[in-house]
Amino acid sequence: MKRLRIALAQINPVVGDLPGNAKKIVSSIKKARRKKADIIAFPELAVTGYPPEDLLLKPHFIQDNRDALLSVAAATEGITAIVGFVDMNKGIYNSAALISHKKIIDVYHKRYLPNYGVFDEQRYFRAGSVFPVYSFAGINIGVNICEDIWHRKSPAVAQAVNGAHIIININASPYHTGKALEREKMVSSLASRCGVIIAYVNMVGGQDELVFDGGSFIVDREGEVLSKGGLFREELMTVDLAVKRGRKMLGGKDKNQLKTALKGYGPVKKMKIASAVLKTERTELRKRISQRLHVSEEVYQALLLGTRDYVRKNGFRGVVIGMSGGVDSALVTTIAVDALGRENVHGVFMPSRYTSVESREDAFGHAKNLGISITPISIDKIFDAYLKTMSPYFKGTKRDITEENIQARIRGNILMAFSNKYGWLVLTTGNKSEMSVGYATLYGDMAGGFAVIKDVPKTMVYKLCEWSNSREGWDLIPARILWKEPTAELRPDQRDTDSLPPYPLLDPILKAYVEEDRSFDEIIATGCDIQCTRRVLSMIDHAEYKRRQAPPGIKITERAFGKDRRFPITNRYKNY
Amino acid sequence: MKRLRIALAQINPVVGDLPGNAKKIVSSIKKARRKKADIIAFPELAVTGYPPEDLLLKPHFIQDNRDALLSVAAATEGITAIVGFVDMNKGIYNSAALISHKKIIDVYHKRYLPNYGVFDEQRYFRAGSVFPVYSFAGINIGVNICEDIWHRKSPAVAQAVNGAHIIININASPYHTGKALEREKMVSSLASRCGVIIAYVNMVGGQDELVFDGGSFIVDREGEVLSKGGLFREELMTVDLAVKRGRKMLGGKDKNQLKTALKGYGPVKKMKIASAVLKTERTELRKRISQRLHVSEEVYQALLLGTRDYVRKNGFRGVVIGMSGGVDSALVTTIAVDALGRENVHGVFMPSRYTSVESREDAFGHAKNLGISITPISIDKIFDAYLKTMSPYFKGTKRDITEENIQARIRGNILMAFSNKYGWLVLTTGNKSEMSVGYATLYGDMAGGFAVIKDVPKTMVYKLCEWSNSREGWDLIPARILWKEPTAELRPDQRDTDSLPPYPLLDPILKAYVEEDRSFDEIIATGCDIQCTRRVLSMIDHAEYKRRQAPPGIKITERAFGKDRRFPITNRYKNY
Repeated sequence: MKRLRIALAQINPVVGDLPGNAKKIVSSIKKARRKKADIIAFPELAVTGYPPEDLLLKPHFIQDNRDALLSVAAATEGITAIVGFVDMNKGIYNSAALISHKKIIDVYHKRYLPNYGVFDEQRYFRAGSVFPVYSFAGINIGVNICEDIWHRKSPAVAQAVNGAHIIININASPYHTGKALEREKMVSSLASRCGVIIAYVNMVGGQDELVFDGGSFIVDREGEVLSKGGLFREELMTVDLAVKRGRKMLGGKDKNQLKTALKGYGPVKKMKIASAVLKTERTELRKRISQRLHVSEEVYQALLLGTRDYVRKNGFRGVVIGMSGGVDSALVTTIAVDALGRENVHGVFMPSRYTSVESREDAFGHAKNLGISITPISIDKIFDAYLKTMSPYFKGTKRDITEENIQARIRGNILMAFSNKYGWLVLTTGNKSEMSVGYATLYGDMAGGFAVIKDVPKTMVYKLCEWSNSREGWDLIPARILWKEPTAELRPDQRDTDSLPPYPLLDPILKAYVEEDRSFDEIIATGCDIQCTRRVLSMIDHAEYKRRQAPPGIKITERAFGKDRRFPITNRYKNY
Repeated sequence: MKRLRIALAQINPVVGDLPGNAKKIVSSIKKARRKKADIIAFPELAVTGYPPEDLLLKPHFIQDNRDALLSVAAATEGITAIVGFVDMNKGIYNSAALISHKKIIDVYHKRYLPNYGVFDEQRYFRAGSVFPVYSFAGINIGVNICEDIWHRKSPAVAQAVNGAHIIININASPYHTGKALEREKMVSSLASRCGVIIAYVNMVGGQDELVFDGGSFIVDREGEVLSKGGLFREELMTVDLAVKRGRKMLGGKDKNQLKTALKGYGPVKKMKIASAVLKTERTELRKRISQRLHVSEEVYQALLLGTRDYVRKNGFRGVVIGMSGGVDSALVTTIAVDALGRENVHGVFMPSRYTSVESREDAFGHAKNLGISITPISIDKIFDAYLKTMSPYFKGTKRDITEENIQARIRGNILMAFSNKYGWLVLTTGNKSEMSVGYATLYGDMAGGFAVIKDVPKTMVYKLCEWSNSREGWDLIPARILWKEPTAELRPDQRDTDSLPPYPLLDPILKAYVEEDRSFDEIIATGCDIQCTRRVLSMIDHAEYKRRQAPPGIKITERAFGKDRRFPITNRYKNY
């Protein structure tokens, strides 16, 4: 029985920060060496951060990333490291360097390049066609990258058939609800099918619209989870793996199936890694129960990390939030305080003639509970100035959405003034239901740098608040915020339901149309009201121009707005 | 000698308007039949419009597009039509249907799917692998799509080697400066190399950020342009082609080269089209000089068409523009009047305490020259209301960019109020130089639905104004607008050069960094000042968050902002 101590470095790089990321990688290598690990694996594109987008088109960026890799290589005395970076050879490749004893032994090129959803990898990378198996003191290891393991014709299969005992799959896999479970199921099934141990290492951290959730794990060749890393935090996992000499052999039928699956693959090359590195201590395999979070906790943690990283990685010290006394701004403020500390969160309450006493009480009550400052600034005088200035040009017209939008835009201007004066980032508070139907004012409540709950449907906003209160054990978010009727308070006695169906009816229609590409007929077949559905779909289509100018926000569903859903503004398609 | 009358239908479809596009196609078919054409070819994805983006992910959209194709097919009595649509067979394909006598004879699938720049075709489509040659009353025809003809291993080569006399290449090729010439050169060289006639049909019209410039053309087998369609307008070209029996044979060496180039291709199938359709009259080939526009005229026409189509296709009747008396708003207003008619263009002049007499004179003078209304609205009272409201919170701070941005955002709010009240689209007036370095106020002068000159560098803005005046034969744009120093007038005696290098120095740096991916070292090697270049590159990088919330605008350079340049906001890469 051979033993191998493997370390999975679930790190949080910053896109483009080549020296910073290299430093972080080297620091993990040092820690892993102290823990006597034989091998340490880093996430996909750990050197550049993920996704580097069009930075990849700059030849000097590619060169600088290779220099950064060399600086990492110089720190691999006495250990073997697998490091994601961009390799160049005529074209560029999403790659994993196998570095041992300061020497780059081999470079693996990703075979399957995702080009759907938020991914644009075929815009940049060429596909690899060689799937090596490395022999490491008698233990055979195959390395591959992210999407490679999801494909029916996975390089992992080729590597298993060619004798790999262990597959190391490095990832930058972004979060959406339920994704962690999908990954474990798929990897577990592959491991037991191929009779290999699979180590899955994921990135962690927020990058613009994406949150990488970590949750790295190792499954044995029966597909059982041996060990699992934390969610939404950096971690250096080490696991001792025992590999029987001769390994679990595949049965004749299984083996033939795998060999058949191999047709059309490029060559599998076998390489040896110096075995001098192997100094493993004897330890026993431990089985750990796979960690699972409640869906509300999972989403909340994603929003927390996404917000913290956007704010910090972009160099802001504080944030400013328009607190209306409603549920959306309550959730955003709660998350912001959790993510950044209360001293870095600044609430502004901007009442008008239409603002209720309850709204004021709720906004101030919540701010008090959180221990943050809240500044009341009436917009009425500015609003009057607009009305007076515009009155000659609006003569003979009725009050309409124009006057409502002016109010929202005054609030946007005030928040931006705080941002400009004090360097605080404005967090917007719109949810996915509003973003979908365009129930939001462009340059008004949509004005800001980061839209924390842009991908959170309104019904889930309530659930997250309830989860947060139950975690706290008291009504940190005042209870009335959760049961009173939602209103924009832009005219007397306004209610969201004046313009929209109730959210429990609205949200399923939105999900069906936006996330699942259902047709009108399919949606009404589920029992949704015909008139209501028609109106909602039309609102979604017509709001595309607003979404195009919305700030980025955190993806938590299978399909978010932004890079995940690319829609024409000019679009006359109507299926309803 | 056989003769064939070919019609190229350079049409302007609307994305998603399946019934409208089908109607337009049928109408061209009827015209072509009256002109006794044997074959009519339409642009790439003529049925859906281009690019349909994520509409392609909706199965019902694909089904509806196929139904629209069937309705087109029903109208092809007595003629053969080549029609771009989306075919489905497990996956979907960017396709050309060959329809003859109401029957769909064959469907060609695009081989090369562009996935760079503004293109995302690998997000949606599978690649074709069969390259038929159709025999049409003894004349052999190969059909392929757009990118197919640009590739070293073009399906056109396979079709030529397999006996095609004529290649019909259908396109949705968006405009950038100089693109028309590139196309002609490439197609001409391919035609003479392969000894085939090539008919290149392009789409025309604006679609969000893109303008398709038309300019369809036919080259003979010596690579000479036989005929060329208009630029920036719909047109039905008909050309009579004479094909010698036995065609120009390729020499042994050429033929071998082509055959070698064929390796790795899928099968070429030969198919016959009923020859009953052929009723060509005898006419002579005519050579026409290829039409060329001056670069300023070309860009101006692109902006004109892009603006007209965005406004009309999105159902707006009028537009409103903040006229400052500066050169940017002067150009945008001139284009808008040209595109939409003066009765549909509404100028608003919004002076403050910092606005000069010259600005007022120039804005009003220009409006008078154009014959449009211009409404003066002072922002001073509203500005005072903001200053007063904010004063307790800004106590002890200096006046800075905050107060400047408040002014710009008041103007944005006023323009949006006109938009909301009267249904006019706000056209923004920022140019590419400003967009690059972020010399613009988010939600201020950046507020609006469409950014006409977003991709036009400031130095080109001047050239376009000069070209426009010289075309008019008088100073339609008052001369002072073109020679006075640019200023935002947001504080006393402000000049653009307080914050930026002079535009003739700035624009080449921007082009090198944004459009050509040059490194800092490469840029200063061309003689640019080190400090200045460093500061400019840093400004470009830091303005990404603003650009992400900018309205769409018309691409006229090789790389525009928007879908063409996909950059992370969170990005610490620094090469300077």
